[in-house]
Amino acid sequence: MIHNCKDIITMEEQLAGSGMRALGMIPDGAIAVSDGKIVDLGTNAELMKTYKADEYIDASGLTALPGLIDCHTHPVFVHTREAEFTQRLAGLSYVEISRTGGIRSTITSTRAASDDQLFELAANRIRKMIALGTTTLEAKSGYGLDTRSELQQLRVIKRLAEELPITIIPTFMGAHEYPVEYRSDHAAYIKILCEEMIPAVAEQGIAVFCDIFTEAHVFSLGETRQILGTAKKFGMRLKMHADEIEPIGGAELAAELGCISADHLGAAGEAGIQALKAAGVVPVLLPATLFSLQAKSYAKAREMISAGLPVAIATDYNPGSCNCDSLPLTMSLACLQMGMTPSEALCACTFNAAKALGLEQSHGSLKVGKTADITLWDIPSLDFIPYHLGSSHISRVIAQGKTIFQEQP
Amino acid sequence: MIHNCKDIITMEEQLAGSGMRALGMIPDGAIAVSDGKIVDLGTNAELMKTYKADEYIDASGLTALPGLIDCHTHPVFVHTREAEFTQRLAGLSYVEISRTGGIRSTITSTRAASDDQLFELAANRIRKMIALGTTTLEAKSGYGLDTRSELQQLRVIKRLAEELPITIIPTFMGAHEYPVEYRSDHAAYIKILCEEMIPAVAEQGIAVFCDIFTEAHVFSLGETRQILGTAKKFGMRLKMHADEIEPIGGAELAAELGCISADHLGAAGEAGIQALKAAGVVPVLLPATLFSLQAKSYAKAREMISAGLPVAIATDYNPGSCNCDSLPLTMSLACLQMGMTPSEALCACTFNAAKALGLEQSHGSLKVGKTADITLWDIPSLDFIPYHLGSSHISRVIAQGKTIFQEQP
Repeated sequence: MIHNCKDIITMEEQLAGSGMRALGMIPDGAIAVSDGKIVDLGTNAELMKTYKADEYIDASGLTALPGLIDCHTHPVFVHTREAEFTQRLAGLSYVEISRTGGIRSTITSTRAASDDQLFELAANRIRKMIALGTTTLEAKSGYGLDTRSELQQLRVIKRLAEELPITIIPTFMGAHEYPVEYRSDHAAYIKILCEEMIPAVAEQGIAVFCDIFTEAHVFSLGETRQILGTAKKFGMRLKMHADEIEPIGGAELAAELGCISADHLGAAGEAGIQALKAAGVVPVLLPATLFSLQAKSYAKAREMISAGLPVAIATDYNPGSCNCDSLPLTMSLACLQMGMTPSEALCACTFNAAKALGLEQSHGSLKVGKTADITLWDIPSLDFIPYHLGSSHISRVIAQGKTIFQEQP
Repeated sequence: MIHNCKDIITMEEQLAGSGMRALGMIPDGAIAVSDGKIVDLGTNAELMKTYKADEYIDASGLTALPGLIDCHTHPVFVHTREAEFTQRLAGLSYVEISRTGGIRSTITSTRAASDDQLFELAANRIRKMIALGTTTLEAKSGYGLDTRSELQQLRVIKRLAEELPITIIPTFMGAHEYPVEYRSDHAAYIKILCEEMIPAVAEQGIAVFCDIFTEAHVFSLGETRQILGTAKKFGMRLKMHADEIEPIGGAELAAELGCISADHLGAAGEAGIQALKAAGVVPVLLPATLFSLQAKSYAKAREMISAGLPVAIATDYNPGSCNCDSLPLTMSLACLQMGMTPSEALCACTFNAAKALGLEQSHGSLKVGKTADITLWDIPSLDFIPYHLGSSHISRVIAQGKTIFQEQP
């Protein structure tokens, strides 16, 4: 029993005609948890009268929110690439860096690493995310680009899901980039993807989603159609890195293919937004990436919200373009750089992020029957989270009913 | 003895003709500390041979940096103003909010607070800053705007300096805004400032600096000349909030008056920069404030560095325009929003920030004889600090030779 909450923000208040939800506040609330699920929630007075619990967590002065959901990350790699940050400051673009090094250097070191090394490095990164409120994480492969190494990364993600106390959803992303050895023979790499990797991943059942980097300098629209078409036949649900840098029609293709989400969308325009809406695709916006890349413009979050889309946000944690592990900071960026309101930003990394992972029936809000993923915050109001920049104001993180992080006293 | 450091960044490498310093790296280093001061530093092998210490701190794998110096903050107030963040997102400007509430609401609640209440609130804020590497802090009054309340805030700052384990430098800022009761009689408030507040502050000896908010909607150039002229006569050193929003000649006046620093400078142009250079004024840039205010342009850091100025950065922590308590995040903003390099950003919140406080003889770099304010970081290289966004990578904070914060294992 989590009792004496100053307030509970359930994210269970629907807004007619909108893809976003309002806060659904319960002042002076309590949450009853059993077997990792929420069995009741309501006012403190009611619940304390109704239940006798084995364990009480006193949340006096604290606000309870759903656990945060980071629905787009790349945490399995060896070395961070901070030197490229300094190169970008000196004027090199992401595309330029990727021609001479960039993601390819990550692939070289990741291919050479052991399972244990990849596991330890990723686990340490995810523990820092947990301390910042993340209780569900989508994690992509995509730094191997050969069958052995991609399967290895998915195996590491499986072990992370088993050994860490949060929900981790695996995504296969062999189509993250062309490996050096196939740079001049795209067809040969696509053959490996479609005839070797995707069947092997499907056979082992170690990825829920198949994702792809669709962009002018990486996978074309036609190549995307071929690869995701194959993944769909093998029973995987689809995601796309779409229209991050240039508007090449990625959003429209994500709609055509029935992707669960289209991610990035920094350059997506009105036609793409309408296509996503018509097809029910969740737009996953990654403002920390555009911030790290010193972008002049951001994804059109306000237009997407006006169109009725359920906008989600995520960190895009990765070693190259965005080494951000904080959803609270991503909420600040969503507000300051994309004009979202604090409650929209919270909806975007709870309920709508669950939708981007197909988990909205079990995660993303505080509701009877859902998983008891709950964060307790020492904040005067929700607005404080994006308003404040810097230190964490999370007091406790609870996943599946168990405390997995507590603030240092 | 802090030994086995992967490397030590001393900030003791001067760059000819520049106001900035290079890192001054010592690989595989150690630092010997006695009575709160650095008594030696060099390679691990040398120092471990030379000294036998009472206490050893094993910094294996860690990088030692000077303690960070936050040379511009407003931490003494009651309530945070997160609701205004949401108002700004909805389109209201800082100046508009300040007309209807804003800083005036802070003044109302701060005037009504007890010494103990103000102390506890500010101490909790500063403890979070310490965990993010801050070992020296400048703290301003300015939320009272009457003699009793301004003296109270300075008394609270004095107590913070005595009871917290870091160096805290007090600044009197009675000229932060016109109080409501003198909104239509500026001359009367200036009379109180010059004939009552400044003499009382000077008599009690509880402020090193006198600061003022010089801006079109607050104190004019003429009023600034009068108030700072009086403070100078009473022995205080001068600071100015100059040219934050509009270029009204604040930088030029700071130079004329011999201020130790001119702060904000978001709108300062070439003439202002040249004036600061000629007069030896330290420009203190506050990128988190402009970021929080969704500014379209930032202070011209690159032009200032090219002109040979010793650029400093600070958080500007306050309840209204910028609730940022993190110098590492401020370093990210200095790089991403103002084009500074990682080493310039570090120099700006260590050595140059010490200069902005007149402390460069005793603080701001790792040098024999200086105060042993040292931070230990778990980072692959300095570039990682601004590159990474979100979680902290500080392992230990040492102030005056004593460990005052350690990362939770």
